[in-house]
Amino acid sequence: MSQPATPVAPPLKDELDIVIPTIRNLDFLEMWRPFFQPYHLIIVQDGDPSRVVKIPEGFDYELYNRNDINRILGPKASCISFKDSACRCFGYLVSKKKYIYTIDDDCFVAKDPSGKDINALEQHIRNLLTPSTPFFFNTLYDPYREGADFVRGYPFSLREGVPTAISHGLWLNIPDYDAPTQLVKPRERNTRYVDAVLTIPKGTLFPLCGMNLAFNRDLIGPAMYFGLMGDGQPIGRYDDMWAGWCTKVIADHLGLGVKTGLPYIWHSKASNPFNNLKKEYKGIYWQEDIIPFFQSVLLPKECTTVQKCYVELSKLVKEKLGPLDPYFERLSDAMVTWIEAWEELNSPPSSSEAAAKPNGSSSSK
Amino acid sequence: MSQPATPVAPPLKDELDIVIPTIRNLDFLEMWRPFFQPYHLIIVQDGDPSRVVKIPEGFDYELYNRNDINRILGPKASCISFKDSACRCFGYLVSKKKYIYTIDDDCFVAKDPSGKDINALEQHIRNLLTPSTPFFFNTLYDPYREGADFVRGYPFSLREGVPTAISHGLWLNIPDYDAPTQLVKPRERNTRYVDAVLTIPKGTLFPLCGMNLAFNRDLIGPAMYFGLMGDGQPIGRYDDMWAGWCTKVIADHLGLGVKTGLPYIWHSKASNPFNNLKKEYKGIYWQEDIIPFFQSVLLPKECTTVQKCYVELSKLVKEKLGPLDPYFERLSDAMVTWIEAWEELNSPPSSSEAAAKPNGSSSSK
Repeated sequence: MSQPATPVAPPLKDELDIVIPTIRNLDFLEMWRPFFQPYHLIIVQDGDPSRVVKIPEGFDYELYNRNDINRILGPKASCISFKDSACRCFGYLVSKKKYIYTIDDDCFVAKDPSGKDINALEQHIRNLLTPSTPFFFNTLYDPYREGADFVRGYPFSLREGVPTAISHGLWLNIPDYDAPTQLVKPRERNTRYVDAVLTIPKGTLFPLCGMNLAFNRDLIGPAMYFGLMGDGQPIGRYDDMWAGWCTKVIADHLGLGVKTGLPYIWHSKASNPFNNLKKEYKGIYWQEDIIPFFQSVLLPKECTTVQKCYVELSKLVKEKLGPLDPYFERLSDAMVTWIEAWEELNSPPSSSEAAAKPNGSSSSK
Repeated sequence: MSQPATPVAPPLKDELDIVIPTIRNLDFLEMWRPFFQPYHLIIVQDGDPSRVVKIPEGFDYELYNRNDINRILGPKASCISFKDSACRCFGYLVSKKKYIYTIDDDCFVAKDPSGKDINALEQHIRNLLTPSTPFFFNTLYDPYREGADFVRGYPFSLREGVPTAISHGLWLNIPDYDAPTQLVKPRERNTRYVDAVLTIPKGTLFPLCGMNLAFNRDLIGPAMYFGLMGDGQPIGRYDDMWAGWCTKVIADHLGLGVKTGLPYIWHSKASNPFNNLKKEYKGIYWQEDIIPFFQSVLLPKECTTVQKCYVELSKLVKEKLGPLDPYFERLSDAMVTWIEAWEELNSPPSSSEAAAKPNGSSSSK
């Protein structure tokens, strides 16, 4: 077979933004250049806005710091966390694309068992563009994958699947452990490459990690809020968990799919377990109540959009988790503010576009 | 490190029976000799009882043919299928062991990606002896495995897990497809070794395949009935599916775990898709009603044993599936007969033991 005359265009090139929260220079992008350079980046700079974040040449990006967030959102900026990677969800808000891929700046390109570099983004896109199967478990995993199918006994009426809202990728090297597990197993590394993608069944919750995550912004974006974490808040490192619980409950309600598994990235460095313990300890006991709450959430039939579901969920959070700690009342209010900000920036196309112009320079390739 | 002076005893050697349904000589055991020889085999001969089934030298086994089944169970033998591998569940009934491994005689030893022979039984035992986690999904799969753990955000109160009732293994080479998929994809082979074991979440059904299956007979045995199939019945190839739906619903109710994934066996030969279509076609449309039925089954709190759950389930089958076809009324009655037979052979230890003596010779190593 001869090579095609023109190279194949990167998939979803004009329909996907890569969102990166950071406090440092983005040298890690060098390793991702072959895979990310065709795409547009939204960089959310956390911490001191006067600090200059260096981005390698040749990437197409917009950069937002805290001053930009305050200017664009005004009083609604209170819903965006500060000094916590939860700030990344601001990038989801200002994106105008259908798909988002978000990655941490300590995540590098992993290799598959054959030694080949893994194009994580390409696998996420494949996950998002093929259906999910949340209503019945397929024992050979993703039935839409080359060389696989639905096994004997899988109902034919369910083989069309449902649209995929979320693709949750994994990590080789440093696993995503909580502080107690980090302390107990300081040397544990994830070396197992599990060659599978699977749909997390309807009604089942999971711990969503924001390190290597893609989603369909049109289908689930307004629920992908990373909560109130970091500066001035009693908790950290639960931003992605919060988003995971909320999006899963809403995806289940709306008949959307959530996948986990491939692709892997190489997570280079464990964060400090002592700092993590300080951030996590309230979450560790709160989650014992939060998870049963989310397991029992029932959204009313009238909630037919993500926004409606999310506002309804915010009410339930205030009612059921408020008694646990006043933090959840503030979080509930922030959920509503987030939806207001989402609608302001996303609903009327003309007026909001000017407002969301970033301060940072946009470098073209 | 020096080798131990005495070889390590095979795990659960005196607590596990291997059940094999067959209509032919068991030459396939030669390949399994290194792994199976220390264990006791229960061979259930299907079809013509006058046919002599040859078993390779050196295996410790008991063999039951249809005459034995009729003699041991009397009128209750009606619940054991004839001319269908569903007859294997007779082996579960007469076993006196805590664990069962069942395998088809067209399944051979598979190799892992490093080229090493896979000891499927050893992996099943590992699956059965470690807990399951049905209440929350762990994104790094089996948290009890060497090199893995629970990830950040997994509730600590759930990390003890629950006892594992079932270990469902997979197949390389010929995948377990239904007749339509076999017909459409005659050349598809499963070549993907997915290095994972996972718990199927509570509330999620799956297609259980009886080809490579292990279970804890004490925990779930009385529900592992393979139904009425084959001779005189309108349906075949749904024996294991039936057992899978029933056991999963009961395991969920009783707080027991069901795992799927490793180990793989090498499935050597696809069965005839035309014959399969004839056996399956009613199942293919019935399952569109059966699965929603099982998804909605709620067992009462009073059902605290597998037997009670199963009898209750038999009533629901008659009530809810009976209208679909009179077959389900017969199946419901057979479920009750099965439980009666189970109690007769398993409850009073002295009287039943004599009755369950096999006709076939027992060869010792």
